[in-house]
Amino acid sequence: MILTVTPNPAIDVTYTLPALRPGAVHRVQQVSTRAGGKGVNVARVLHQLGVSALVTGLSGGPRGAELERELAAAGIATALVDALPDVRTTLVVHDDDGVTTSLWEPGQPPADPAAAAAALLDRCAELLPAAGALVVSGSLPTGVDAALPAELAARATVAGVPVIVDGDGDALRAAAARGHAVLMPNREELARLVDRPVGSATDIAEAAGRLCATGVPAVVATLGADGMVAATRDGTWWARPVAPVVGNPTGAGDAAAAAVAIGLAAGAGWPEILADAIALSAAAVARPVAGAVDVELYRTWRAQVRVSGPNGREHRSMR
Amino acid sequence: MILTVTPNPAIDVTYTLPALRPGAVHRVQQVSTRAGGKGVNVARVLHQLGVSALVTGLSGGPRGAELERELAAAGIATALVDALPDVRTTLVVHDDDGVTTSLWEPGQPPADPAAAAAALLDRCAELLPAAGALVVSGSLPTGVDAALPAELAARATVAGVPVIVDGDGDALRAAAARGHAVLMPNREELARLVDRPVGSATDIAEAAGRLCATGVPAVVATLGADGMVAATRDGTWWARPVAPVVGNPTGAGDAAAAAVAIGLAAGAGWPEILADAIALSAAAVARPVAGAVDVELYRTWRAQVRVSGPNGREHRSMR
Repeated sequence: MILTVTPNPAIDVTYTLPALRPGAVHRVQQVSTRAGGKGVNVARVLHQLGVSALVTGLSGGPRGAELERELAAAGIATALVDALPDVRTTLVVHDDDGVTTSLWEPGQPPADPAAAAAALLDRCAELLPAAGALVVSGSLPTGVDAALPAELAARATVAGVPVIVDGDGDALRAAAARGHAVLMPNREELARLVDRPVGSATDIAEAAGRLCATGVPAVVATLGADGMVAATRDGTWWARPVAPVVGNPTGAGDAAAAAVAIGLAAGAGWPEILADAIALSAAAVARPVAGAVDVELYRTWRAQVRVSGPNGREHRSMR
Repeated sequence: MILTVTPNPAIDVTYTLPALRPGAVHRVQQVSTRAGGKGVNVARVLHQLGVSALVTGLSGGPRGAELERELAAAGIATALVDALPDVRTTLVVHDDDGVTTSLWEPGQPPADPAAAAAALLDRCAELLPAAGALVVSGSLPTGVDAALPAELAARATVAGVPVIVDGDGDALRAAAARGHAVLMPNREELARLVDRPVGSATDIAEAAGRLCATGVPAVVATLGADGMVAATRDGTWWARPVAPVVGNPTGAGDAAAAAVAIGLAAGAGWPEILADAIALSAAAVARPVAGAVDVELYRTWRAQVRVSGPNGREHRSMR
């Protein structure tokens, strides 16, 4: 089982309307809702691939109940901690011209943020012995200590469970400083983490490599159409997408995290893990909702991915 | 008691952020929520003035429970019909440049729209004997017959209760055709109703007068900074704001409906009613949230409003 932690889950609401115009009144044509949050999306992808996943994190309130009902109906197991006054909404507005606008609520603070974080640490301590990998994803509710993902990662390491942190800002900085987790920043998150622009391949490899030198086991930088770079203690690998994919990039990073978690749990090598991550990530872009992947496309692309190794040597898939 | 009907209530959500940019990802800084819908706002204004109000309409689901809890906490009595799968959200985005963007969800259809409408008619039939006036406000959930406000108005008339319909589109057209309700359209709603532009004062008075000639007891056109026109069987009155008001115009029409309901319940004359409506409406603009009025400002302005009558004669307040 792979344990995913979503400290700040969400109900993802999607509005469809002809055109979003600041200053105007819009009558929304279509409303759809879906249980979300990055760790929830990671679990959805794992579930779709037939890999057992368990969702934990903070929840509560009427939208928390809605989220748990929906995941139960989808066959995804949950062990959420009831600590939030309510689960936030993340709104995506799609207009008929193909423009997508996102509005992310911050997440209401727990009544007692320290107690909520402690309860989530305890819940993970109970669940870690059965976990093959731990994935801690996304933002934290207002008021919760940014060190929580780093602390979860430290406890996973003590339990012998490989761990991924896919966060941003102070939480990512704290996790980098503690050094237990594989970090999965995108280009902007990596730039904020190292406090300098990371435009070129060399910039990225250098920034990620420097993090590994300070004790981070690996940095997998997800670069959209430019592919992915994995800087590890054993070297740096680069993978590029097999073909350009048109679709919804939301959730591509979560699919990549699912692939890395599967690989770490299985003890796979980095070229294999990176090839899986890039193929699964592209298969997520091909599906319109976050947390879903096109499994056929994943299998097709997986066989074609080429990964360049430390000396420019190409690694072919073993599958 | 004044009975307000909100067939399609809402949870009004307000987001504050620096600037809304189509195509961008926004982290919302502040989220506030408030039980809303036009009839709910009318009841809030009545309650603030010390006038007994009862809220009915369609409700249901977790957001319906949230709405009822919030109104109960505010001391506003409710007798809502549980018929909706959930209550919709109406979102307002305020940005730091003072731009306000609104996104109104349509409202989910009841499982059985005809049964929901029948249940609301029955509920109103029970409550009308105790009502001094009935106000039917706002949109209808998807699937509910547009003739519902007109039918409610007809039943109120049979019960001897004066009735206001503040609606739009087919619902307003049906109410105009049945002829029982005082109609309270804004300029755009009136233009759609009579199917021609109503730019000038003469246009508006003529359009409203023509509706009265077909059997509508009165049309109170709410014209923002241009004031209000009341066309009635006894003549046409015009009132202009005492002073320009800067603020939030959402809810100004609901405050005007509250004033008209109080006047009709008390058997007041149209110059008095119109003076109350314009002063209360301006007092609503002065408050940042819909459904609230600045009572001091209302009293000050009420004493200063001048209403022009059928022959250009000025009516002074009797208060």
